[in-house]
Amino acid sequence: MAPKGFLFSAVEAAIKKPGRKDLALIYSQVEAAVAGTFTTNTVKAAPVQLDMKRIGSGRGQAIVINSGNANACTGKKGLQDADEMTRLIANNLNIEPSLVYICSTGVIGTPLPMERIRPKISELIENLGRSTMKDVASAIMTTDTFPKIVRRKIKIGSKMGTIAGMCKGAGMIWPNMATMLCYIMTDIAINQKTLDKVLNDAVRKSFNRITVDGDRSTNDTVLIMANGILGNPQVTEKSGPYTTFKKSLYEVTSELSRLIVKDGEGATKLVEIEVKGAASEADAERAVFSVANSSLVKTALYGNDANWGRIMAALGYSGVHIKEEKIDIYFGDIKVTDRGIGTGRDKEANRVLKGKNIKIIIDLRLGRSSAKILTCDLTEDYVRVNAAYRT
Amino acid sequence: MAPKGFLFSAVEAAIKKPGRKDLALIYSQVEAAVAGTFTTNTVKAAPVQLDMKRIGSGRGQAIVINSGNANACTGKKGLQDADEMTRLIANNLNIEPSLVYICSTGVIGTPLPMERIRPKISELIENLGRSTMKDVASAIMTTDTFPKIVRRKIKIGSKMGTIAGMCKGAGMIWPNMATMLCYIMTDIAINQKTLDKVLNDAVRKSFNRITVDGDRSTNDTVLIMANGILGNPQVTEKSGPYTTFKKSLYEVTSELSRLIVKDGEGATKLVEIEVKGAASEADAERAVFSVANSSLVKTALYGNDANWGRIMAALGYSGVHIKEEKIDIYFGDIKVTDRGIGTGRDKEANRVLKGKNIKIIIDLRLGRSSAKILTCDLTEDYVRVNAAYRT
Repeated sequence: MAPKGFLFSAVEAAIKKPGRKDLALIYSQVEAAVAGTFTTNTVKAAPVQLDMKRIGSGRGQAIVINSGNANACTGKKGLQDADEMTRLIANNLNIEPSLVYICSTGVIGTPLPMERIRPKISELIENLGRSTMKDVASAIMTTDTFPKIVRRKIKIGSKMGTIAGMCKGAGMIWPNMATMLCYIMTDIAINQKTLDKVLNDAVRKSFNRITVDGDRSTNDTVLIMANGILGNPQVTEKSGPYTTFKKSLYEVTSELSRLIVKDGEGATKLVEIEVKGAASEADAERAVFSVANSSLVKTALYGNDANWGRIMAALGYSGVHIKEEKIDIYFGDIKVTDRGIGTGRDKEANRVLKGKNIKIIIDLRLGRSSAKILTCDLTEDYVRVNAAYRT
Repeated sequence: MAPKGFLFSAVEAAIKKPGRKDLALIYSQVEAAVAGTFTTNTVKAAPVQLDMKRIGSGRGQAIVINSGNANACTGKKGLQDADEMTRLIANNLNIEPSLVYICSTGVIGTPLPMERIRPKISELIENLGRSTMKDVASAIMTTDTFPKIVRRKIKIGSKMGTIAGMCKGAGMIWPNMATMLCYIMTDIAINQKTLDKVLNDAVRKSFNRITVDGDRSTNDTVLIMANGILGNPQVTEKSGPYTTFKKSLYEVTSELSRLIVKDGEGATKLVEIEVKGAASEADAERAVFSVANSSLVKTALYGNDANWGRIMAALGYSGVHIKEEKIDIYFGDIKVTDRGIGTGRDKEANRVLKGKNIKIIIDLRLGRSSAKILTCDLTEDYVRVNAAYRT
């Protein structure tokens, strides 16, 4: 069940190939508190530029999303098109355009086919309430192979609230947002500043800790709308339910990010890598991403080869201060490297790699900081999917 | 023909699979001036650590190389093994161990099979003069598919000198040295300091400007030996032949680095990418490597897809200051992006990509600096080669 007061719609506007819905709307029946995080890529798509302006108000009521076209690298026309889409939605919903957010995902560099989108807006709005979260989660997919939705129920006083999130994203994934769109809705009343804070915390520890291929997109967006329809006393940093809300929101973003990596383009394995014993959290993050983004490490994982030497090499060029002779590496429970030297247990570790869920722990033994991320292996299918993406 | 006074040898020590030579020796009949550059990876293989100490003298006479085992992440035993190998060679050649350099390439983390190497040393030395440069270039190959040798003749006064280089390397290639071994020999007399300078210049503009997969190795080494047997007056920075020597050496390293990328693991295309109009050379380098190391760009090249949007995205996350609305991008002669906007000529550009040698030019239009690098596409075969490397 979706949180109270949210309606959904998805239609086919022929932006993608025929037979697939590609235009979707999320609508809150009342104005909501909104918070968001956006790509750190300097090249930002038109919809991202528009949303980043609007989110200053902390208010919103609708999110329109199209797949099949990223409306990125489209210049002034791209900005005009994004603005027009939100105006058309606002007019039809009879709300202010400033309350409408917009996201696009798909091919970069081609103008939106506005002539096909415009005539579909009224159908999109009429359809509100006839579609489900799953319809929207499906309509926003590009190379994803399954829709991604996570829900959590929270008891606030005597009332049962809901946080529900959906996202898309399967490639071009790296920290600080990658072609990743995520919409989270809740009927719980929460102070906008508090919402902003908990969202940023949750994103930092979830979406910003996953990597598929080290590429970062022009379009990444996470938006949360809290419409307060539950009628609870507004959650603030000082109120009782704050901790529960924060924890549940993190569970939603964390589980959604796990689904993204699981659906990594061509991936056959979900791999959790932890660097611990680092001198600082920044060092731990840098080291763990250097390992996780190494094509040689990722192909070895695919080949069920516990090639810890490639991990050592990736640590060595990470730019982080390490001491080779201190490093321990584990694949699952199997210690393959002891103080920088192989333990001769590679064959046992190769068997660990035959699983679908792998844990790798790297202990730098230099300090107390750690960072854990999720990634996947690099396969022939990744190459195939991305070589043929626009054909 | 090899430069005068150099002898070669290659034998089978069963470090690799049976039937392949894997132990090689390059020997100068007289002591030579030596210069070298080494991996910037913090995790340095034992032979690299040893060579870096010895090269301080600027002198040398022999280089022993094994393939099949990198002698990296092997701790104290690795250092002892490397030292022992050079001592065995020195004793048999009746020269000082400090004149012997050593390189290893292959799997990381497994100790050298010294029990198989020791008994082969005398055969390796007896064989000197019976093998060719090509035999050595073949014996040092790992995933390479062909031996890589380049020669240049230079007239110095009335005498004809030679610079000849060989190298191996096909994956794990990135700037600042990657699993790349290169040996350059010349019979031209040249001052050691001058040799050091011209080698560093040549490497910076050749081997440090190529990338296959963004991984940097623990073992990269470039060594040059100048034995002076030609009998010319020693070349110095102030002498007439300096410019010719420098140019010829650059041609050798430049052509060798082109051969490495051409042999990039699984590559089907040789791609030259130039970023120009950058505010500084550092910006140009950073931007061009961000594009060249993007898995999404590389798979698109493989798919004959002039997906310039992925180039824009890679520029956007490069960390370099860019202005999207100023950028021009060309595939060959076809301008696909004009001031940040698509020109609609993608189909023409796709046809350019069907060639084997591709040029991509990115003009940031912000300044006068540029950087040009060589790379290759990312294919299913890259994944296959690297998933199965140790099996």
